[in-house]
Amino acid sequence: MDSPLLFPVSLTENTIQVLDETKIPYTCEYITVKTLDDALGVLGQMKTRSLGQVLLFFYCCVLFENSCASDEIAGKFQKTRPTFDFLFLNGLIKRYRASGAPLDKIVSGFITNFDRARKLRATTLAGLLPQEAHILTICNVNGELLYLAEALESSGKHVSYYVCETRPYLQGSRITFWELRKNNLSCYLLCDNQAALLMKKQKVNCVVVGADRATKTGDIINKTGTYALGCLARHFNIPFYALTQYPRDIDVNSIEIEERPPREVFSYIEKWSNGQDAVYPAFDVVPGRLITKSLELPMKQ
Amino acid sequence: MDSPLLFPVSLTENTIQVLDETKIPYTCEYITVKTLDDALGVLGQMKTRSLGQVLLFFYCCVLFENSCASDEIAGKFQKTRPTFDFLFLNGLIKRYRASGAPLDKIVSGFITNFDRARKLRATTLAGLLPQEAHILTICNVNGELLYLAEALESSGKHVSYYVCETRPYLQGSRITFWELRKNNLSCYLLCDNQAALLMKKQKVNCVVVGADRATKTGDIINKTGTYALGCLARHFNIPFYALTQYPRDIDVNSIEIEERPPREVFSYIEKWSNGQDAVYPAFDVVPGRLITKSLELPMKQ
Repeated sequence: MDSPLLFPVSLTENTIQVLDETKIPYTCEYITVKTLDDALGVLGQMKTRSLGQVLLFFYCCVLFENSCASDEIAGKFQKTRPTFDFLFLNGLIKRYRASGAPLDKIVSGFITNFDRARKLRATTLAGLLPQEAHILTICNVNGELLYLAEALESSGKHVSYYVCETRPYLQGSRITFWELRKNNLSCYLLCDNQAALLMKKQKVNCVVVGADRATKTGDIINKTGTYALGCLARHFNIPFYALTQYPRDIDVNSIEIEERPPREVFSYIEKWSNGQDAVYPAFDVVPGRLITKSLELPMKQ
Repeated sequence: MDSPLLFPVSLTENTIQVLDETKIPYTCEYITVKTLDDALGVLGQMKTRSLGQVLLFFYCCVLFENSCASDEIAGKFQKTRPTFDFLFLNGLIKRYRASGAPLDKIVSGFITNFDRARKLRATTLAGLLPQEAHILTICNVNGELLYLAEALESSGKHVSYYVCETRPYLQGSRITFWELRKNNLSCYLLCDNQAALLMKKQKVNCVVVGADRATKTGDIINKTGTYALGCLARHFNIPFYALTQYPRDIDVNSIEIEERPPREVFSYIEKWSNGQDAVYPAFDVVPGRLITKSLELPMKQ
């Protein structure tokens, strides 16, 4: 199993290549980043996200080492995407650097360790999941669901994924669903608002999500839509697993939640799929116990 | 305040005019229905829905009275959209008919009474809502939110609406949001998956939804997405009001939930709005108490 999302950004000679995630699933194109402004541009437009922004930051530190301090790069990255913790990554780089190793070696070592660690985590999670794992997920976890599928399969378990489309940017339908289907994994796309029904009907038996931030008190920050899944999983008594990194000793409410341009709510969705693997029940049943008051139409039968 | 959704279907001379709800907000076009097959076509393609399908059924009974029994019409309607209760509407018509009045008079009387009743209900609901009513809604309630706004205003209360876009067919963004904005009401569009955040932040203080079906035990059936709102409203302790009609003495689980073609999940969404009234927080905070287990990346800091 493979996915370009596993390593969406790479450094060659004097340029950084960034997978343009906004063009998936139409094409797999890479954007050439030669300047720090180029990098901030692709970051701000969410051409890359999640692990991609970590790699982009690290490679910028390598590429612009002689012209720009990593403190300055981190400050500009942080301003562009305020919720992600680039200042922490900068501290990480500085600590690694204290060893005296060259920065490019530090970064490539980090990436190797990171990949090993996420495979190990996938094995751990696979051990926690049921024999027939029907996993509800949202947004995109950069290929880690492939590692999870491999780990589940090698322990003789079966997996199917139910992917929330993840409005408004549709990372679920455009990226995760595409990634899973390319690898012939059993997967179904759903509208975010259908998760309650799938839980109720026991079509899914666990939730697995990534996390952009995590705190030591156990709170996480992840793509819009994750909170609802957490509340619903609790309501339906379904386990909810979060894939986190570097939990920080910080009050989650002190972290700025990025507000994206409202026009982006109106972006996207066209017919890039034949839609055969989507589910579309047209109605929901809401049990009376959840309804405060039904106002019947005051009209005789 | 006015909306073509208040009376989306009308009968003139020998044809039925059906508002094409799939073309809103681009254009307000009406489809001419001359045969029962025409009617079943617009019904199946969801050109009309909710009240529109009630009116379409009634007018078909009037228009084809001499060529087709209402039992047959009801059966065909029921098969086309199985979740809605056309057989009950047929029973209603038959009971009214027992009075001996001509069918067209019966139907026009029904519509007048229906409109009076929904205004009355809006007044009742307005009495239950807070002074500053921040109402979360989903799908479309055929202009009844306008009546509700009028009732709130005339009792000196203020209203703003937060409209879930209602994937996949986007009745919320295309129809409700358009309807409210045309009438200069304060309204914001949101992605369905953002409702949890708005509740948590107390941006909304009640939920108001319509219902396609209701049972005597208090359960309702409404557009996909409504169930999640019910669960979330309970989680955040926000009142949830349902606008129902004719609660039936039936087990809600015995009602067939229509499965629409999966390809429709991939339909729609383009830039019909400048998007200035949308909200778009890019991330969610999930409190640790909702997370079963966080799997930290097994990697040193």
